[in-house]
Amino acid sequence: MEQKNPTAILLLCCPDKQGIITDITKFLTDNSGNIVYIDQYVDNVDSMLFMRIEWELAKFVIPREKISEYIHTLFAGRYDMDFNIYFSDEKPRMAIFVSKMSHCLYDLLARYKAGEWNINIPCIISNHENLRYVADQFNIPYYVWSINKDHSNKDEVEKAEMDLLKKEKITFIVLARYMQIITDKMIAAYPHHIINIHHSFLPAFIGAKPYHQAYERGVKIIGATSHYVTNELDAGPIIEQDVVRITHKDTPDTLVLKGRDLEKIVLSRAVTKHIERKILTYKNRTVIFS
Amino acid sequence: MEQKNPTAILLLCCPDKQGIITDITKFLTDNSGNIVYIDQYVDNVDSMLFMRIEWELAKFVIPREKISEYIHTLFAGRYDMDFNIYFSDEKPRMAIFVSKMSHCLYDLLARYKAGEWNINIPCIISNHENLRYVADQFNIPYYVWSINKDHSNKDEVEKAEMDLLKKEKITFIVLARYMQIITDKMIAAYPHHIINIHHSFLPAFIGAKPYHQAYERGVKIIGATSHYVTNELDAGPIIEQDVVRITHKDTPDTLVLKGRDLEKIVLSRAVTKHIERKILTYKNRTVIFS
Amino acid sequence: MEQKNPTAILLLCCPDKQGIITDITKFLTDNSGNIVYIDQYVDNVDSMLFMRIEWELAKFVIPREKISEYIHTLFAGRYDMDFNIYFSDEKPRMAIFVSKMSHCLYDLLARYKAGEWNINIPCIISNHENLRYVADQFNIPYYVWSINKDHSNKDEVEKAEMDLLKKEKITFIVLARYMQIITDKMIAAYPHHIINIHHSFLPAFIGAKPYHQAYERGVKIIGATSHYVTNELDAGPIIEQDVVRITHKDTPDTLVLKGRDLEKIVLSRAVTKHIERKILTYKNRTVIFS
Amino acid sequence: MEQKNPTAILLLCCPDKQGIITDITKFLTDNSGNIVYIDQYVDNVDSMLFMRIEWELAKFVIPREKISEYIHTLFAGRYDMDFNIYFSDEKPRMAIFVSKMSHCLYDLLARYKAGEWNINIPCIISNHENLRYVADQFNIPYYVWSINKDHSNKDEVEKAEMDLLKKEKITFIVLARYMQIITDKMIAAYPHHIINIHHSFLPAFIGAKPYHQAYERGVKIIGATSHYVTNELDAGPIIEQDVVRITHKDTPDTLVLKGRDLEKIVLSRAVTKHIERKILTYKNRTVIFS
Repeated sequence: MEQKNPTAILLLCCPDKQGIITDITKFLTDNSGNIVYIDQYVDNVDSMLFMRIEWELAKFVIPREKISEYIHTLFAGRYDMDFNIYFSDEKPRMAIFVSKMSHCLYDLLARYKAGEWNINIPCIISNHENLRYVADQFNIPYYVWSINKDHSNKDEVEKAEMDLLKKEKITFIVLARYMQIITDKMIAAYPHHIINIHHSFLPAFIGAKPYHQAYERGVKIIGATSHYVTNELDAGPIIEQDVVRITHKDTPDTLVLKGRDLEKIVLSRAVTKHIERKILTYKNRTVIFS
Repeated sequence: MEQKNPTAILLLCCPDKQGIITDITKFLTDNSGNIVYIDQYVDNVDSMLFMRIEWELAKFVIPREKISEYIHTLFAGRYDMDFNIYFSDEKPRMAIFVSKMSHCLYDLLARYKAGEWNINIPCIISNHENLRYVADQFNIPYYVWSINKDHSNKDEVEKAEMDLLKKEKITFIVLARYMQIITDKMIAAYPHHIINIHHSFLPAFIGAKPYHQAYERGVKIIGATSHYVTNELDAGPIIEQDVVRITHKDTPDTLVLKGRDLEKIVLSRAVTKHIERKILTYKNRTVIFS
Repeated sequence: MEQKNPTAILLLCCPDKQGIITDITKFLTDNSGNIVYIDQYVDNVDSMLFMRIEWELAKFVIPREKISEYIHTLFAGRYDMDFNIYFSDEKPRMAIFVSKMSHCLYDLLARYKAGEWNINIPCIISNHENLRYVADQFNIPYYVWSINKDHSNKDEVEKAEMDLLKKEKITFIVLARYMQIITDKMIAAYPHHIINIHHSFLPAFIGAKPYHQAYERGVKIIGATSHYVTNELDAGPIIEQDVVRITHKDTPDTLVLKGRDLEKIVLSRAVTKHIERKILTYKNRTVIFS
Repeated sequence: MEQKNPTAILLLCCPDKQGIITDITKFLTDNSGNIVYIDQYVDNVDSMLFMRIEWELAKFVIPREKISEYIHTLFAGRYDMDFNIYFSDEKPRMAIFVSKMSHCLYDLLARYKAGEWNINIPCIISNHENLRYVADQFNIPYYVWSINKDHSNKDEVEKAEMDLLKKEKITFIVLARYMQIITDKMIAAYPHHIINIHHSFLPAFIGAKPYHQAYERGVKIIGATSHYVTNELDAGPIIEQDVVRITHKDTPDTLVLKGRDLEKIVLSRAVTKHIERKILTYKNRTVIFS
């Protein structure tokens, strides 16, 4: 749903001091920025303030290319502040990585096609040909780089992928059941901008075959977890989780089937929050604005 | 809710062969045992049959003290069967172990007092005096054995506890947030008859302070797990689990509060299933009849 | 997932009498029908037995076209039994009715394309052109009959639709957010074979705009309900329901968005159960085998 | 959990205008009121601001008995504001009304006794003697007024109850499965200060025997709803709801049992929010601060 009036979104995080909120809202109001969203959260354990504020650019006195500089000069130093500025009319550009399973990919593309998300998806990348027909259905370029069994071409593949991501000006990546480890180099290029779906209730059942692990352990509930990818496997900041009840009648096969619905919904909820610029990360945790 | 007509309950487990169900139902019917409940489940992965069958004793030809012998002679060998016989008018005798927190204890005793469970609770055992007032409110004997910091009296305490359990003819034990490790000896005396509540979604956050672990990991959902106690910590067969959604606003303190309701409900659901003789265990998993 | 060995599935319902299960399993076994699934449920309130039994046809002595006759002759009269026979290699033929929203349609077609369901979808029917592009993506014929505002062509449209359903040998219909009332005539042609998704937790918020009704009432949870269509609006036997938590921050618009995921999952779960022949209906309620 | 430093809590609601939050926080800060909690919510549909702000009284310049007057003079008129002031060291005084079922009563009293709530419970009122033993266990006065079958003494009973509530300075009432209609007069005396638990997912199954209604309708999920009592039966502002999944195997009796746990948890969550002064009501809906 495209917005009529472009807005700027400021996401910030800093030690909690009195006056910050007043200072920033005053700055925006004084410069004719009509605030359309404001939400903040104070982590009392660590005395940190997290804030999301959004205002209309139409009559805002400061030109958009200068906003970041002004925030930096006026507030960042004084308040020891980390911040990011986004503009509602600059569509995020999302790349999807897939392997062989189609359920998450279809869910992402169906939302995209229905206009649920204000983004572009310029490419789908895979290590297998299997899902090319899905990309074709939606007229999205599909690139395959298969990795040799001895991983001898891993660097080469990574370079080709990175080149494509750069060429397509990709701003964030979604791993839609992509069954390969992402390299540190790619993670470094997209810090907290790669979203993975893991098919378990993390931190339970890290790594391979979580549904089989769940079956062996005899749990009564299974889950799925979407998180930002970091260097440590399945250990990045969690964005969203959900669960479904199972019974002793479930086998690894039925868990896989039941899990599919969880995976696609949990992944898409995380993607939505990311696109809406409603996620801040701190100490390997996420603050999710509503 | 006490039943008018005493019934016998047969719980069995054996390799799945054709004819078992027919044989047993025929045996009961031929001997005037009116079947009031029958449910079975076949684990197709391991080709095992699990069955629960309950019949009225009123006109049953075989005297109750002979039933086990008959089942053993007629079926156990032929079908390689494990089985247990229970009688509805022999009330389970439950001991509760507690430390300092009252929420699970109150929940158990409120159900007991309201007549929700057809059991006796002859004693409450603790390592602290803190909850004596609750036991007093419900007129249940409360025994305290505190364990020295150097654990020097551990054997002595265990012996005293085991003596009491024996004297009171305890048939199963409920650990209602009892913050002590149960010894192998006691576990051996009550195999799959000690029910614990762990305040996490197992196998995530095994061991101490799971809510703090959950907070640190930044999960979006917390859980509670009731399970039978085995020699390995928090690794016994899971009976019941449930979860509740949390947010970044939750601190370890609010997690503890939110978790309390989960813990007591999940523990009591497990106790209900155990009392109703609706749980079979197999390969560290549970089959739960409905 | 297509089965290698064709099977027959018998779904039956009758007053509960001793011997039925034995009789039927004996009949199948005596005639070399290898039973691969058996589940039954006794409704003790009404003393009714519900049963689902599935056996391999490969060595079954009775030819498949005679099975129904044999069951009828041998058991139906004696036990006052309603029953249906299905064959696993006779694929259900499903028609989808849609209006303007794509989320349920995509979810159905993505599963179909991924081979999750052993069915054929020969046609999609609509009162609007809007979703033709989705049908085109999946190469499924898309038929549009728009109904005049004065409903003057209603009979004509119905006839055309019924002709198509007949021509395509449709065995069941899925209303994937189809915003038109189904006529009594069509319901009569597909009794308990038309599955609807209603975007509320029935019986709350029957009729139009349930999310707006939910917003006005200030509920804290919204739901979706899939059910068989009967002559009374939104009152047919419920197959599946699910819910999601909301807050005071939700507006009718965000409820619509949150509801979409519920709707598609709840609808697809119902379709799965229907395809697997695991639903029996009785007294406006469903028995759902697992 | 009693707070060391007394605080004042301001709950307000007014049309959303720029400057309100700044004005109020400035007023508090200027007068040495250390703010320990601030949360606000803007209803964009109706352009209304809802706010909860809490500050320490220790060094606050304005004496507590004058605070309300100051807020009224300085802000209420200018901003067309409804507001309430509470003090953390003025314990709410809660009366409990019960009939015959003990589960909600035990849950409330167990929390009270464990110090989970900073309140007093001076009395329990009933129309039956049944639960006197519970009140006795917790040493709380228990009053019984039974209403004649012809309701001839209804006025008299109400007067006696109202006198007691007044004498005991009751600030809010909890109906813990109290099976009587509350009179308009009592509702008028405690507007949005009487909390009821209804044993269904409102607005489904209003009125008597909701579990039986749920069984007849064949729903797959049951719920419980806590709400403020208003003159219209089961139609007041909803505070909290929760649900539990059921199956065709459930009978009205098992629904009653499953519902009990829902009821007590949902009621206690609502009571917690009320005691914490985190509920605002608007247009028959609630705003619940976290």
